[in-house]
Amino acid sequence: MTQSISFIGLGAMGYRMASHLPKAFSDVRVWNRTTEKAQKHAQEFGTHAVSLENAVQADIIFSCLPTSQDVEKLVASVHIKSGAIWVDCTSGVPESARNLAPILLEKGVQYLDAPVSGQTIGAENATLTFMVGGQKTAFDRALPAMQTMGKLIKHVGDSGAGFAVKAVNNMLLAIHLCAACEGASTLKSHGVNLQEAFDCINASSGQSGVTSSVLPNRVFNRSFPSTFALSLLAKDTGIALDLVRESKLSAPIIAASQSLVQAASHLSEDGSDFSTLAKMYESMNKLTIE
Amino acid sequence: MTQSISFIGLGAMGYRMASHLPKAFSDVRVWNRTTEKAQKHAQEFGTHAVSLENAVQADIIFSCLPTSQDVEKLVASVHIKSGAIWVDCTSGVPESARNLAPILLEKGVQYLDAPVSGQTIGAENATLTFMVGGQKTAFDRALPAMQTMGKLIKHVGDSGAGFAVKAVNNMLLAIHLCAACEGASTLKSHGVNLQEAFDCINASSGQSGVTSSVLPNRVFNRSFPSTFALSLLAKDTGIALDLVRESKLSAPIIAASQSLVQAASHLSEDGSDFSTLAKMYESMNKLTIE
Amino acid sequence: MTQSISFIGLGAMGYRMASHLPKAFSDVRVWNRTTEKAQKHAQEFGTHAVSLENAVQADIIFSCLPTSQDVEKLVASVHIKSGAIWVDCTSGVPESARNLAPILLEKGVQYLDAPVSGQTIGAENATLTFMVGGQKTAFDRALPAMQTMGKLIKHVGDSGAGFAVKAVNNMLLAIHLCAACEGASTLKSHGVNLQEAFDCINASSGQSGVTSSVLPNRVFNRSFPSTFALSLLAKDTGIALDLVRESKLSAPIIAASQSLVQAASHLSEDGSDFSTLAKMYESMNKLTIE
Amino acid sequence: MTQSISFIGLGAMGYRMASHLPKAFSDVRVWNRTTEKAQKHAQEFGTHAVSLENAVQADIIFSCLPTSQDVEKLVASVHIKSGAIWVDCTSGVPESARNLAPILLEKGVQYLDAPVSGQTIGAENATLTFMVGGQKTAFDRALPAMQTMGKLIKHVGDSGAGFAVKAVNNMLLAIHLCAACEGASTLKSHGVNLQEAFDCINASSGQSGVTSSVLPNRVFNRSFPSTFALSLLAKDTGIALDLVRESKLSAPIIAASQSLVQAASHLSEDGSDFSTLAKMYESMNKLTIE
Repeated sequence: MTQSISFIGLGAMGYRMASHLPKAFSDVRVWNRTTEKAQKHAQEFGTHAVSLENAVQADIIFSCLPTSQDVEKLVASVHIKSGAIWVDCTSGVPESARNLAPILLEKGVQYLDAPVSGQTIGAENATLTFMVGGQKTAFDRALPAMQTMGKLIKHVGDSGAGFAVKAVNNMLLAIHLCAACEGASTLKSHGVNLQEAFDCINASSGQSGVTSSVLPNRVFNRSFPSTFALSLLAKDTGIALDLVRESKLSAPIIAASQSLVQAASHLSEDGSDFSTLAKMYESMNKLTIE
Repeated sequence: MTQSISFIGLGAMGYRMASHLPKAFSDVRVWNRTTEKAQKHAQEFGTHAVSLENAVQADIIFSCLPTSQDVEKLVASVHIKSGAIWVDCTSGVPESARNLAPILLEKGVQYLDAPVSGQTIGAENATLTFMVGGQKTAFDRALPAMQTMGKLIKHVGDSGAGFAVKAVNNMLLAIHLCAACEGASTLKSHGVNLQEAFDCINASSGQSGVTSSVLPNRVFNRSFPSTFALSLLAKDTGIALDLVRESKLSAPIIAASQSLVQAASHLSEDGSDFSTLAKMYESMNKLTIE
Repeated sequence: MTQSISFIGLGAMGYRMASHLPKAFSDVRVWNRTTEKAQKHAQEFGTHAVSLENAVQADIIFSCLPTSQDVEKLVASVHIKSGAIWVDCTSGVPESARNLAPILLEKGVQYLDAPVSGQTIGAENATLTFMVGGQKTAFDRALPAMQTMGKLIKHVGDSGAGFAVKAVNNMLLAIHLCAACEGASTLKSHGVNLQEAFDCINASSGQSGVTSSVLPNRVFNRSFPSTFALSLLAKDTGIALDLVRESKLSAPIIAASQSLVQAASHLSEDGSDFSTLAKMYESMNKLTIE
Repeated sequence: MTQSISFIGLGAMGYRMASHLPKAFSDVRVWNRTTEKAQKHAQEFGTHAVSLENAVQADIIFSCLPTSQDVEKLVASVHIKSGAIWVDCTSGVPESARNLAPILLEKGVQYLDAPVSGQTIGAENATLTFMVGGQKTAFDRALPAMQTMGKLIKHVGDSGAGFAVKAVNNMLLAIHLCAACEGASTLKSHGVNLQEAFDCINASSGQSGVTSSVLPNRVFNRSFPSTFALSLLAKDTGIALDLVRESKLSAPIIAASQSLVQAASHLSEDGSDFSTLAKMYESMNKLTIE
């Protein structure tokens, strides 16, 4: 293809995601706040380390930054090429997408909120899931580039819809985590073998990604590897609760679980993995979940 | 094998479960309150329709009745063969198992609480999951018989442990259902395409058996097929909450979800499928989840 | 005193509140969207029905409007006298007060958020409670005017603090209402005489304004008089939950109760009194609270 | 009067309660597990320290023991005079009352569950509230004796009703405590003066016994005096939740608050006052409520 592609933000996810673009595109530019990282990426994967000004002159511009605020600041500081598509893979705030999209459209730029799931392993293997909000025409044009990095790529609605799906997904993760910790605590207190019990649950109607993966791989074995911070889960569940509030909905389990994640985040050390929420339950119930 | 096997209670589950026993055992006896059903089973699958007195003289006796109370009454009314193993596949109450086991042991009978999951389709295909509580020696002896009906068969602890795992599994199902309804309502109110959104969630960390099966197959398509009654889910979540109370645990999401299932059960018509819980959320939020 | 006072917004509360000002001030001006109401007030209480332009030239300007948005629009449309104090008795949003205060200060106007409690009876008898946020100097200068209308008048903090206290007060009202409905339902289902039971509770540690006044006077007697709309309580509890979210707090009972009030508001007819929340519980539990 | 009265259980409450009986009755007998306490009471108040056998021969027998189990054991160990009334002031379990009443009735003894509120100060000043379940004829006969110790004495229903009202009262206390801690935390995090704010709330619709007494007198001043143990509040809220479960009710705020009290009880030191529940909230939200 003759399109030029940029990738802005080479963090744990972005670095791996951008590595797949040269397989399908010849002009792939990368930019990162620390230039060294971009240069390393260029050497390793055949991309081009460019200035921010140059990066925003590409036909399709991906961004993957910590928060929507970071994206807003960056967008406000540059002159983006008219006709470009901005694909924002940040786990962002729907309201921010709804604000950014019309602002960029006035400048001839189409904005897609396109958060991903699949963690670093999915970024490495190009098996990410993209949940995309924004104009369908922009989605169709950006699809080939997303396909180099992802497996399941879905247009889920208008601007903000992508971020909303990501927030709700992470809210479900949080609820399932609370539920699994409570269920495991209940069984533990009655002398049940947790490993065997969860094998049964995982073959039954109570299964979730948490029962089949998070509890066995992070909690039961006491590893709590720091791959996704509890504070970020607290942020994401907060975004979900804000969506509930915006629509004046009644969502008691979302509301209750958000409180618990928020408390766990306050109670844990900085940088703790989201699975350490289990430790709050262990204190509350004077037992260990293993 | 030369062991004799009985199956007591030929309901939707029991009828199908008992059909597999003749494949591995030559002396298979069945009993049901309505004799016709037992005779039909005998004709269809080569089992023997016997009297209750005869049924409880087998080496291994399976029961699959509506509630633990039914099992208690039946057990109290018969003289079970000393040396027999009673395998109770009812979705029962842990406390009942803890009471029954020592009473039967005094008569030389080992009692296993062995509820199953997998629904009628799993009973038909002999792919059920057995979660079994009680003495390991009894488990080992009853294992070959259970293997004719199930795929995953686990000894999860002492008497009551099997029922506890089943109750917790169904509690998780209930929580996941509330969570998915709330998440779907939130997305719906923000104009997100639910089908596409749940495709993404099912490939992500928020996946559960509810998001991948219950919502798409029962709620989004408005079918609400009556396969598992909401009132039974309310009963099972009540058993789980009672386990929480017994151990004086703090389990806020279990407690909150049990309230919601209980309310939904009161609000719905008799016999409604558990998935109709979604309709309570639809009233609470003035929208439809589709 | 020689100060001039204005009162903007002669609704059910404002009409009665402004009636007390002439007792202590000679120059009292009133303004209302419908002029007739202001003229009636002038005739009845010796105030002066003036134009909005004239009203905002007074030394102290009270406002009592439906929402913070109404106040913001009105403030944006007029030129307020420099040196004036604006005392906003609306049940408003803390964030709005934090925004308005510095904007007005630039124009030489001090803004106080000063919501009241005590309902129309308190407005009539000049026994209102004022919870006031903003600069202490402005509070001191506006105190004599507030004292003509209220009994307890407190400076609770900086801009927004007054609105925050009102929101939290109404959140507590909502929680106590849910709690009392649940407690009453529990007792009713066990055959307890509610009238006698609540007499005991009201003399004990479980007493609240809801147990001693709302339930006996509005629910037990099935009167549900429309004095404070359930939709407004839903709005106020939403403001409280937003304060929780802003500070990233864990407040599980606030979160859960807000969900219930929100659901009850969706389930009830427009204009229903807040006490009709009891009817939601009656449906959920198939009983009546009387 | 010529009736004989006994008081069994001279703890902090019972010792003070029994002191008032000699004012209206000439034959007042007391019994306590440690005889010295009974003898001291006899000397101090003119009662008679008797054997347990003698105590249960009185016309009216009061008991005030730690739990319903203690009462059941004691009742099972003695021969009570036929025609006597047993007035049980323990904070007990409704189910226990429903079991004891018919057992005693067969022996010609009428049982009243008659828990009290008002704490030791109310016992000292004879201003207790009695909430009484059981036969109205027994209530009427025991009324004069109760009147020597209490101010408000109510017959609230059949056997168990008195215990149920006490449990619900303490559940409301627990909910109000959670609510007040959450409300205070919210205000604190927004810089509001808590003392002034709660003065306003106490004059408004959000008032409760907790906002007007518990928070100002136990939490804001950091005194947390040990007068009513958090573990006992956890027990009482558990009784209330069991009543909810028995009737298959939906009571989400009761359920959620019970979880919180249970967690706080696990997290606190043995013997901590119920007001230390505030400290759990302080940890969860990284702030102090003062």
